[in-house]
Amino acid sequence: MLLLARRTRFLTKVFTTAFLPPKAISKTCLHRQLRIFTAMSSSDQNSAPNDQSVVSQLGPDGKPLSKKAMKKLEKEKEKEKKKSEREAQKAAEAEAQKAEDFAKDSYCVLPLIQSKEKTSRKWTKVQNLTADLSGQKVLVRARLHTSRGTGKQCFITLRDRQYTVQAICAVSNIVSKPMVKFAVGINKESIVDVEGEVKKVDQQIKSCSQQDVEISVEKLFVVSLSEPRLPLQIEDASRPDTDELAHVNQDTRLDNRIIDLRTIPNQAIFSIEAATCKLFREYLESKGFHEIHTPKIISAASEGGANVFEVSYFKGKAYLAQSPQLYKQMALTADFDRVYTIGSVFRAEDSNTHRHLCEFIGLDVEMTFYEHYHEVVRTIGEMFNYIFKGLQTRFADDIEKVRKQYPSEPFKFLEPSLILEYHEGVDMLKAAGIEMDYDEDLSTPNEKLLGKLVKQKYDTDFFILDKYPLCVRPFYTMPDARNPVLSNSYDMFMRGEEVLSGAQRIHNPDLLTERAKHHGIDLEQIKSYIDSFRYGAPPHAGGGIGLARVVMLYLDLHNIRKSSMFPRDPKRVTP
Amino acid sequence: MLLLARRTRFLTKVFTTAFLPPKAISKTCLHRQLRIFTAMSSSDQNSAPNDQSVVSQLGPDGKPLSKKAMKKLEKEKEKEKKKSEREAQKAAEAEAQKAEDFAKDSYCVLPLIQSKEKTSRKWTKVQNLTADLSGQKVLVRARLHTSRGTGKQCFITLRDRQYTVQAICAVSNIVSKPMVKFAVGINKESIVDVEGEVKKVDQQIKSCSQQDVEISVEKLFVVSLSEPRLPLQIEDASRPDTDELAHVNQDTRLDNRIIDLRTIPNQAIFSIEAATCKLFREYLESKGFHEIHTPKIISAASEGGANVFEVSYFKGKAYLAQSPQLYKQMALTADFDRVYTIGSVFRAEDSNTHRHLCEFIGLDVEMTFYEHYHEVVRTIGEMFNYIFKGLQTRFADDIEKVRKQYPSEPFKFLEPSLILEYHEGVDMLKAAGIEMDYDEDLSTPNEKLLGKLVKQKYDTDFFILDKYPLCVRPFYTMPDARNPVLSNSYDMFMRGEEVLSGAQRIHNPDLLTERAKHHGIDLEQIKSYIDSFRYGAPPHAGGGIGLARVVMLYLDLHNIRKSSMFPRDPKRVTP
Repeated sequence: MLLLARRTRFLTKVFTTAFLPPKAISKTCLHRQLRIFTAMSSSDQNSAPNDQSVVSQLGPDGKPLSKKAMKKLEKEKEKEKKKSEREAQKAAEAEAQKAEDFAKDSYCVLPLIQSKEKTSRKWTKVQNLTADLSGQKVLVRARLHTSRGTGKQCFITLRDRQYTVQAICAVSNIVSKPMVKFAVGINKESIVDVEGEVKKVDQQIKSCSQQDVEISVEKLFVVSLSEPRLPLQIEDASRPDTDELAHVNQDTRLDNRIIDLRTIPNQAIFSIEAATCKLFREYLESKGFHEIHTPKIISAASEGGANVFEVSYFKGKAYLAQSPQLYKQMALTADFDRVYTIGSVFRAEDSNTHRHLCEFIGLDVEMTFYEHYHEVVRTIGEMFNYIFKGLQTRFADDIEKVRKQYPSEPFKFLEPSLILEYHEGVDMLKAAGIEMDYDEDLSTPNEKLLGKLVKQKYDTDFFILDKYPLCVRPFYTMPDARNPVLSNSYDMFMRGEEVLSGAQRIHNPDLLTERAKHHGIDLEQIKSYIDSFRYGAPPHAGGGIGLARVVMLYLDLHNIRKSSMFPRDPKRVTP
Repeated sequence: MLLLARRTRFLTKVFTTAFLPPKAISKTCLHRQLRIFTAMSSSDQNSAPNDQSVVSQLGPDGKPLSKKAMKKLEKEKEKEKKKSEREAQKAAEAEAQKAEDFAKDSYCVLPLIQSKEKTSRKWTKVQNLTADLSGQKVLVRARLHTSRGTGKQCFITLRDRQYTVQAICAVSNIVSKPMVKFAVGINKESIVDVEGEVKKVDQQIKSCSQQDVEISVEKLFVVSLSEPRLPLQIEDASRPDTDELAHVNQDTRLDNRIIDLRTIPNQAIFSIEAATCKLFREYLESKGFHEIHTPKIISAASEGGANVFEVSYFKGKAYLAQSPQLYKQMALTADFDRVYTIGSVFRAEDSNTHRHLCEFIGLDVEMTFYEHYHEVVRTIGEMFNYIFKGLQTRFADDIEKVRKQYPSEPFKFLEPSLILEYHEGVDMLKAAGIEMDYDEDLSTPNEKLLGKLVKQKYDTDFFILDKYPLCVRPFYTMPDARNPVLSNSYDMFMRGEEVLSGAQRIHNPDLLTERAKHHGIDLEQIKSYIDSFRYGAPPHAGGGIGLARVVMLYLDLHNIRKSSMFPRDPKRVTP
């Protein structure tokens, strides 16, 4: 412990020395310091430093070097010496040049921000740079999106999330030539602090979000330097996949997700993801729903044991929940009469498709009703409409930004939602030439086709398919009271793909036991679930929504990996 | 498939027959039907039904029965026959009695609600039963909380979540004697539909939440019958643990969580849990924070490999994330400059204490700053105050309901939050006679004691302890710029227990690499994390909050299992 503390103290001293030069240091200077620091720490760890191995003049095999090898070694030594002399000279020249530079205090690579100082300076966000601020001095922190030097001036585009503004660093009585050179040399994606005057422009700057103004740069500091070579270019990652110019494939994007996510369309996609959750909650809370949280580690594989991830739990085994459903239901039997939960859902399905993930965020709803599960279906339908309308009206900008890269038709929906019975759906498919039975589940292509047929007939991208055949639904699904082949269950679709699956659940322990047996489920494993209906249980229904699917389909992105920040599929658990 | 469908059709037919008598059936009648149903389905599965085994007169060993055994068997048969005759007679009597009953259509156990009908009836919530409705007919669905028969009348308390109302079922020209008897016989916790007139009472009903009115029952239907024996009594589970009368121990509560959760204090606790999340989001969204979702399945144990749950991931291995921190940080380097996330966090710690869980909900915040991590500390402090104030003002009723079972002092806090430096905390402990070093971490008892000392001195239950020794914090913690022994890190405390741990994080890949090496962390395993800082990374800080801890400490519940709906600890993964 004491040793650790001492070592920590030593190392920390090294860092502080390395990272905290007087006030502000030049880029070269910082890089040199970084090198010193690295050398110090590595010499701290290597048992045989370079010099010593040269002195002993032994080869890698431990034998003395031959004359030829000795000569080569000396040559290399000489070369290295010259190189470092050259570098030192260059640095000295740069220092000298800078010393003479009248603008020398107006630019540099800042030392690592380690929370050493508090000033009263105010920063302005890029999105707030409008003509109103014309003539005012501002301080802006943003990424250097692009820069282009033309001798005595440098045009910079600054980017902060979805907003961009032009900045000009031009030689003047404030800005020196070396300062312009410094600006030109800053690597793209570095984070910079720019001080300057906001100027109204005569001609709109089409390439920026802030089209009416530019910043006339007076000071320019690098807060965090990016490596010169980016694994992917923001411009390339922002182009439609169909574009002739370079674009980035999906795996490269995901391998370098933190850069990929910086594109304006991606910023907008995840703004819409957050908005979807927000609207989901807004609607449900206005209807008296109660937020709950359910455990993800469960003692038994709830739905028969297939497709669950196993977890080592101390000396035993446990599983990751495939859905919060059993817990939502238990919450209802515990009197929380309308609940929702947003949380991770795990599926160990080896499905490598455009719409399956092994881990995703479920938006789950469960609700008691008085007479008929359609009370619940109507509520969920209204909730979807609330989300669709909310996105359309409150997040139209974001939708537009996504469309620039991923073109899509506006999402259409009906109020109230269109509800078709399963057999009506099958009839439509049959009429379109598909051969299938009424008690057969919908295949993915048939779902897609049905979506198209419904769109043609009803002009809606969202609809509810009600009264699925009992035999294709899970054991806890309530059978239909009038037709024993059917069930009180439903799926909801966006652009022909399922986004919600739900049902009236059986709330009678005897019927539930029978259905579980029928499905071959080990009763011992679901005992606490069945028992939860023994002490008075209200009739109820609900459903689970895949968040990433809703976002993917609303924006028509065609790949669920585009609407999941860090997606997990059978082949990907990183980053 | 076809076979399955056929079997399903057959079974469903059985259910429908069993569960759907003409319109409404008596309790006895339903129970008989249920018995028939069970018998039918079990005979469907047994290859040798009872009767046949008697006819062949073979014993369980397959050999013919002895004379003695034969006699015994016949006696049993006779006994069973008489029993069923008696039952049939009883049922017939009940039917006959009911047939004569003028109120026979006003009460019964309803058939299973299978969404067969939609009527236009309106239900009224218990909480809305006030004197305003006096004289009006209402229909209420609620639990039968308690009932007490006194000959010609039955006093019922109806409960819906945190609200209770009295109902009286008394013999009159509408209510018959058999109907009162039926009311008296309904098991507690059953769900009932009550129709009747709202009557203003002369004397307030102290035992109910709705004190000014009662319902004069005219119709009474059982929607879902509870088993007669409850594993725990709601009244017992609602008493303070210190009460002389019976109360329920924590494990019995958790084993029967769905009943335990029905107590009014528990309804209030989870209302406050939901409110805490709501207030957390409200504050952060007002400050421009962006909600994100992070993966729980990760490829490598991020913080050295201890205390992580291992997951089998297809043919490989993965782990459950101990915190969303690395992903929150990656989101910041991907330009989402202020993020929060609410999600499950997993800790494979074998800690069996009042405040540790193996799975809990983390409220996580991460934020870029301009100059000093105190910008973040201040924001988080304000957020806590927003939660404390919000609970106090908007959820005062719930707090009061919890206090009836779990007495506590009002939660005190200062505006702005009190911030002490770590060494000041150590000084206070030293002054109180504790021997400890300035670079030593706080033990749990010392944390508790410090909480008390701070409360005495500053009259606050919430404070922030800033500038922890570097050696006791994780590798990604930013060292202090002025004092190498310290770090830019902080914990936040409620009633002397830690609820948040946070820090400025290192945003420079070289320094991060060095610190990881120093902590003995396999660099290969955190490569993508370190690399995420190579392309321009903003200075940032954040922290993670345990939701259940905040609720437990705000309400002073003394056990984290009371503020987690379905808690997980080393010994519990059910229900």
